[in-house]
Amino acid sequence: MTDDTVNALVSPEGSLEILSSHEVNRLKDKSEGGLYRLFRQCALAVMNIGTETDDCKDLMDLHADFDLRLIQQPRGLKLELINAPASAFVDGEMLRGIREHLFAVLRDIIYAHSILAAAPGFRRDDGETTTNLIFHILRNARVLRPGHQPDMVVCWGGHSISRDEYKYTKDVGHELGLRNLSICTGCGPGAMKGPMKGATIGHAKQRVTGGRYIGITEPGIIGAEAPNPIVNELVIMPDIEKRLEAFVRAGHGIVIFPGGVGTAEEILYLLGVLLHPDNRHIPFPIVMTGRQENAEYFRMIDRFIRNALGDEAADHYEIIIDDPVAVARAMKHGVESVEAFRREHQDAYYFNWMLTVDPVFQKPFDPTHESMRALQLDRDQPTYLLAANLRKAFSGIVAGNVKEQGIRQVQERGPFEIAGDPELLRPLDDLLAAFVRQNRMKLPGSSAYRPSYRIIDTTTQSTGTD
Amino acid sequence: MTDDTVNALVSPEGSLEILSSHEVNRLKDKSEGGLYRLFRQCALAVMNIGTETDDCKDLMDLHADFDLRLIQQPRGLKLELINAPASAFVDGEMLRGIREHLFAVLRDIIYAHSILAAAPGFRRDDGETTTNLIFHILRNARVLRPGHQPDMVVCWGGHSISRDEYKYTKDVGHELGLRNLSICTGCGPGAMKGPMKGATIGHAKQRVTGGRYIGITEPGIIGAEAPNPIVNELVIMPDIEKRLEAFVRAGHGIVIFPGGVGTAEEILYLLGVLLHPDNRHIPFPIVMTGRQENAEYFRMIDRFIRNALGDEAADHYEIIIDDPVAVARAMKHGVESVEAFRREHQDAYYFNWMLTVDPVFQKPFDPTHESMRALQLDRDQPTYLLAANLRKAFSGIVAGNVKEQGIRQVQERGPFEIAGDPELLRPLDDLLAAFVRQNRMKLPGSSAYRPSYRIIDTTTQSTGTD
Amino acid sequence: MTDDTVNALVSPEGSLEILSSHEVNRLKDKSEGGLYRLFRQCALAVMNIGTETDDCKDLMDLHADFDLRLIQQPRGLKLELINAPASAFVDGEMLRGIREHLFAVLRDIIYAHSILAAAPGFRRDDGETTTNLIFHILRNARVLRPGHQPDMVVCWGGHSISRDEYKYTKDVGHELGLRNLSICTGCGPGAMKGPMKGATIGHAKQRVTGGRYIGITEPGIIGAEAPNPIVNELVIMPDIEKRLEAFVRAGHGIVIFPGGVGTAEEILYLLGVLLHPDNRHIPFPIVMTGRQENAEYFRMIDRFIRNALGDEAADHYEIIIDDPVAVARAMKHGVESVEAFRREHQDAYYFNWMLTVDPVFQKPFDPTHESMRALQLDRDQPTYLLAANLRKAFSGIVAGNVKEQGIRQVQERGPFEIAGDPELLRPLDDLLAAFVRQNRMKLPGSSAYRPSYRIIDTTTQSTGTD
Amino acid sequence: MTDDTVNALVSPEGSLEILSSHEVNRLKDKSEGGLYRLFRQCALAVMNIGTETDDCKDLMDLHADFDLRLIQQPRGLKLELINAPASAFVDGEMLRGIREHLFAVLRDIIYAHSILAAAPGFRRDDGETTTNLIFHILRNARVLRPGHQPDMVVCWGGHSISRDEYKYTKDVGHELGLRNLSICTGCGPGAMKGPMKGATIGHAKQRVTGGRYIGITEPGIIGAEAPNPIVNELVIMPDIEKRLEAFVRAGHGIVIFPGGVGTAEEILYLLGVLLHPDNRHIPFPIVMTGRQENAEYFRMIDRFIRNALGDEAADHYEIIIDDPVAVARAMKHGVESVEAFRREHQDAYYFNWMLTVDPVFQKPFDPTHESMRALQLDRDQPTYLLAANLRKAFSGIVAGNVKEQGIRQVQERGPFEIAGDPELLRPLDDLLAAFVRQNRMKLPGSSAYRPSYRIIDTTTQSTGTD
Repeated sequence: MTDDTVNALVSPEGSLEILSSHEVNRLKDKSEGGLYRLFRQCALAVMNIGTETDDCKDLMDLHADFDLRLIQQPRGLKLELINAPASAFVDGEMLRGIREHLFAVLRDIIYAHSILAAAPGFRRDDGETTTNLIFHILRNARVLRPGHQPDMVVCWGGHSISRDEYKYTKDVGHELGLRNLSICTGCGPGAMKGPMKGATIGHAKQRVTGGRYIGITEPGIIGAEAPNPIVNELVIMPDIEKRLEAFVRAGHGIVIFPGGVGTAEEILYLLGVLLHPDNRHIPFPIVMTGRQENAEYFRMIDRFIRNALGDEAADHYEIIIDDPVAVARAMKHGVESVEAFRREHQDAYYFNWMLTVDPVFQKPFDPTHESMRALQLDRDQPTYLLAANLRKAFSGIVAGNVKEQGIRQVQERGPFEIAGDPELLRPLDDLLAAFVRQNRMKLPGSSAYRPSYRIIDTTTQSTGTD
Repeated sequence: MTDDTVNALVSPEGSLEILSSHEVNRLKDKSEGGLYRLFRQCALAVMNIGTETDDCKDLMDLHADFDLRLIQQPRGLKLELINAPASAFVDGEMLRGIREHLFAVLRDIIYAHSILAAAPGFRRDDGETTTNLIFHILRNARVLRPGHQPDMVVCWGGHSISRDEYKYTKDVGHELGLRNLSICTGCGPGAMKGPMKGATIGHAKQRVTGGRYIGITEPGIIGAEAPNPIVNELVIMPDIEKRLEAFVRAGHGIVIFPGGVGTAEEILYLLGVLLHPDNRHIPFPIVMTGRQENAEYFRMIDRFIRNALGDEAADHYEIIIDDPVAVARAMKHGVESVEAFRREHQDAYYFNWMLTVDPVFQKPFDPTHESMRALQLDRDQPTYLLAANLRKAFSGIVAGNVKEQGIRQVQERGPFEIAGDPELLRPLDDLLAAFVRQNRMKLPGSSAYRPSYRIIDTTTQSTGTD
Repeated sequence: MTDDTVNALVSPEGSLEILSSHEVNRLKDKSEGGLYRLFRQCALAVMNIGTETDDCKDLMDLHADFDLRLIQQPRGLKLELINAPASAFVDGEMLRGIREHLFAVLRDIIYAHSILAAAPGFRRDDGETTTNLIFHILRNARVLRPGHQPDMVVCWGGHSISRDEYKYTKDVGHELGLRNLSICTGCGPGAMKGPMKGATIGHAKQRVTGGRYIGITEPGIIGAEAPNPIVNELVIMPDIEKRLEAFVRAGHGIVIFPGGVGTAEEILYLLGVLLHPDNRHIPFPIVMTGRQENAEYFRMIDRFIRNALGDEAADHYEIIIDDPVAVARAMKHGVESVEAFRREHQDAYYFNWMLTVDPVFQKPFDPTHESMRALQLDRDQPTYLLAANLRKAFSGIVAGNVKEQGIRQVQERGPFEIAGDPELLRPLDDLLAAFVRQNRMKLPGSSAYRPSYRIIDTTTQSTGTD
Repeated sequence: MTDDTVNALVSPEGSLEILSSHEVNRLKDKSEGGLYRLFRQCALAVMNIGTETDDCKDLMDLHADFDLRLIQQPRGLKLELINAPASAFVDGEMLRGIREHLFAVLRDIIYAHSILAAAPGFRRDDGETTTNLIFHILRNARVLRPGHQPDMVVCWGGHSISRDEYKYTKDVGHELGLRNLSICTGCGPGAMKGPMKGATIGHAKQRVTGGRYIGITEPGIIGAEAPNPIVNELVIMPDIEKRLEAFVRAGHGIVIFPGGVGTAEEILYLLGVLLHPDNRHIPFPIVMTGRQENAEYFRMIDRFIRNALGDEAADHYEIIIDDPVAVARAMKHGVESVEAFRREHQDAYYFNWMLTVDPVFQKPFDPTHESMRALQLDRDQPTYLLAANLRKAFSGIVAGNVKEQGIRQVQERGPFEIAGDPELLRPLDDLLAAFVRQNRMKLPGSSAYRPSYRIIDTTTQSTGTD
């Protein structure tokens, strides 16, 4: 491994450039409460571009001898890197984009720590406090820009897609960029990188020098999905729920490319939020799009949503196949309607304060046999809660498939049981089966897919796919 | 008064432009714990330029009908002002410099509140925590600039000086500006405004577009000394001790113009800090300067210092009479030696971390008959502690003269008693008497000066000036 | 003299930074047709700040050993200066403002040469060609800024004024600066420097970072009136007529402070241009202003104009005494009406194409006994032509007083004779006599004033003041 | 055609934003001497992106109803376009990159006209004057930047290449961009676009905001090779010889991708210039590069050069196959040696004044039967002149193949005859035959290739390929 590592002293770029002695001490602190380990892990992740791994643990193992130290210098802080991944360097010098990411990580880790650890107010669990916390982290990262017209298009989709699918995401990004729109993604490869690359060329043609390529990630995922260096505003949110809320609060519209189960989960999150009665009149443009080959994928998703959540839910999005210009125009138009709405209601362009995000979408879901079995999966509840519960079911199934803790639970106690209205569960079962067939269900190892769940029809007691 | 007030809606400029809902609520909160009253008071102060008042209370009384409201708008926050002082406006539009000050005030009040109220760590009283707090406030105000060469000259001196003295401070500022130095002052009128005005012209001739005119103030004084609008970086420190420490941590040299007792107190603070044994080798250029007429003033100060603190103390400063070019060259040279020292010791250019500020200089002194009498004023202690105690004696005498609480105590219980070594106390007495003769001792009303103190000679029991 | 000179190598700043080999050769060429001598003379002039001399020749004599050389370097051109005046340097380094001026001089000398010497089109004498030439020189100097609102206030007035008068011009400049107006002057000291200094402070308070302080001069005058270093856009026009036309084409309004005969001549030029029938409807705000002591001066001017050119001429200007705020407001308002007019007529904001400048104002007047005697000074002509002729009469008288060639002619052949309508000539005589009394008539040496002219009353043959 | 055209009013961007009345008149002038026709033709060309045509005449015919008018407005000039190609617009608004190109065209046409038509000096034919003219045009276009380190890599190669070849040029551009190098090309599609696109992404990752993508074209070719909109500095040189000289004067190194006969001609030009004895010690890095499939192409070129011009000529370049990183490193290294050389010799970084370009390379070659037959193609001359003559032979052959006038001559009088040393001519013949086989010889229509030349062996009289 030694050939592929570099020792370097790097200067900050763009973000937090000076630290107090307190902060330096906290970052050096290798104890449980200290920030050293988290910082080391995230730093490693942002430098690890180009290497595909799905597992943060792998990354840590691979670079066990990586270390980093803060060095105080007259002109400010420097960072000494020992055995850093060579992929972050060009001819021995660190890519400036990566340097920015390194210090963005530093900034967010310190800020989130200070705000979470110190401010007792932020530890309360009410929704408003969570939303304020998200606001503060985004503001501290200078993502929220007063005076700007709405222009931020969030792109969701798989990080592991075919070359042609990737090309399509670039084409969409190019058209978005030509229309002066900014791109925000989860900042990994695939559908999270393509739109940014395309938009970079589009922006170059339009001489947009301040083109924004915002990546919002979290410590749990950054190791598996290293931010691509085009991302010029990187934010580390504390967890997946706050990350998702950051997308819907800061973004002005969402484009969804084909993806795996994760993408489906995000769709359910998004629709669940928008279906809340308080959000009825809030415009939020959503386009699902892909190449001709992906038409069936979206038809399947659409069918599932219409069955589970009704046609009203489907009114929230538009499906556009194989037409990047139409996607970009729909987004441009949608973003303009967002602007008109905010202006009319005197709400901030840079943060969607009016949107209600129910606490059910803010609290992490911990899948166990008990919590999975307890999910209410029937129509005797508001649609937005059904969406929330379906999302949780999804989440648990994924955990049973791929996450360490989930897999162990299933191994020990058998598949998770999901009970509820068969009219809801059967299409869910079908959808998941289709994902398996289309290889959209990522599995550890190469074994054939063994379902991690059983569907309990509360009337007929028929089982799942097995 | 109504002719001289204006109603206006102003946009933020330069600083905090967006607030979270939590922050807005805190600022609206008119209760004791809320920030509304503090914000209103400071806002009024920064708008009150041109009007001379020595008393914050007067200002509040004069503008009892002034009010302000935060207005959320799509492009960010606005501030609605009702019955604002007309002096802040030109043809009905607020001076942009004042707008910046308004939002700097907002920024610092919110930040200091969040950091002080929420972070338990910052309420501990150890020196390092105080220093970190000062660092954080300055960093949040973007006063600390990594990558910059040292260039910040702090100017101290009276806010109420003659036209010729004022002209001299402008000339010094002009020469400092021609040498690309930045100016930092307490941001009121007089010797705090002149150097900035002069430097503005000097910077214009040198095409320095980012000329820095930093004003560091505190809520207790801002009402009496409104920041002049040339100040383009305004910081509100929580109290006088932190303000003084901010000057010596962020500044790279200090020019002292003639002033009143306040200036003398600042000199004792400064020498006290520098005389600490740990600071022995830290360069810190100090120049005392004034016109020919002020030569006697500085000779007097010099004599007092040499007697009380020794010639070693006098080595810390240079006295330059009637020669702005020489002052500027001395500062330029001094700042270069600071740069060389920091580079050698790898200490930050933007913050003097190496300087030891003893807690005795960080803690507020509350003058009472008891605390004044208890001051140890003899040579049986390290020089820097003697400087600290002399500063406290000074501080108490001033309070007995002009501060509400001090005056009341003296009225009720007679002059403060100061006991100690007559070789120290007699020159102190002489110095104060000279200040009275030179009208440098500000008194409420026009009555003849009645001393607020008695000197107790512990050997002969001879009394003070009466 | 050697103590006060400096040798230095300076880099270009702001303007022409690279030259072709042809251009370098032309600048090195010390022959008659070469540009070396002109460049050396102008370069010396811009470095000679602070030293008052009224005579370009003196300056050259004083610095006979001054020399300069172009040095080609990898990053561009440098200029080697030998025995340069020390006034241009601060601690051995050239003021950046002066550096800009040096290279502005270089730029304009080269450009005017290339455009005049090479382009046959520009040597034709029709008015449109002259106007295009002025446009090209101003554009090449980047003085004409598309996209800008009109904001340029031209300030005229004496370069040798009292301290109080100077202070007044600063106050007016301060108020203009507070209203975001730019200043354009002839760029010497006195009334040409004060408004810029005041505006610099006003702009600082309004955070106008791109404040414009434009100086328009000419090779014949630059030696006597060195541009003050605040001037941040310096233009060298080929001669006085093109300089005056540049003021009225590029400026959006004019403030006239008290001055000498030169100022009176400028007023006649300005009114002459505006009184042309084609310019009847073109707005052009003019304010004459001064302190209380100057009220009489303006009354005198006003009387002379009303008598000679009629009340219609007086409608073009407003006289405001001792009220900087009112002056600035009148200018702001006037400039707004210029903007409205240009918008309505789709004329450029940055250049007054619509203004007709009659060739009589474009051609230099060469005063001799013949040309002076031939001037038509009666009412049998359009008012604007009368203004032109009065201006020539003025010009000749001044030449007879102070210019080398004029003085010699008068010595040899006696005073110039001016003939015409006594109702015009007598007030002219009075005005000049008043100038003499008020010491506004600059004379070489200290001798009492001996008139350089005789007025020939064509009816009564009565003589002038002698 | 009407569906694909747009009417629009566009504002200038980046360059010449204001014009004098003289200039406007010249641009409106539709007569022979006027500039209207040239401007219309070039304007059409820059808007015609995406459409492939090899013929300027086609373009004009296709858009016969296109027209454009200059509109004077208060904030500056606007351009009214009637029936403009829709490809220049996104949702009805012109691409900002195209807008810049439009006004760059305007700027260069006016400037070249004024400098060529008016300045008699520039019409002289000596080499130095031509070089100064090139300098002035580049300076006026702000391409020459003082203070910049050398960084400009010129990329040459075919405009009509395969998708994989195109991808390779992007990869090379990406690596160049990652190393902060700027790209300069002939600004058409293919190998002139790929490197810019790649560098745009590379620059984005390195946060190079001022990335330079310079396109140098000429009126004769712009119609066939519309500048791609990434080009952010467009320059129109008057003719092909000045364009080629601009590349070698302003560029710091050259990368050559596979191309057609045009590329081969450029290689001969380049080597001819560098082989001049005066240029012996001037570093000029050249890399020929392509994918594995192109290895044979470069071997062929290399063989031809070594035979004709000797191994010394081959020392000037390096051939790198299928290794973008190595290409970029070689260029980085080469550019650094250029920098070191210029620093040592105090020559400008931004313009290669030291390079001798013999007049034989500056004068256009007009191929006729006589001039072709007269070419001296033997070794009895300096190598650089042989290179010049070979280049002319090439040029004539191409003209006989594809240019209107050349084709007609060949039709009327038979193939051009080339006479000379068979050891030179036979490899030339082989090279051309290989181009034909590889379809690198562009031909009008689809007919089989009929050679436009006959080789006359002056000893054996053997003929060419037929």
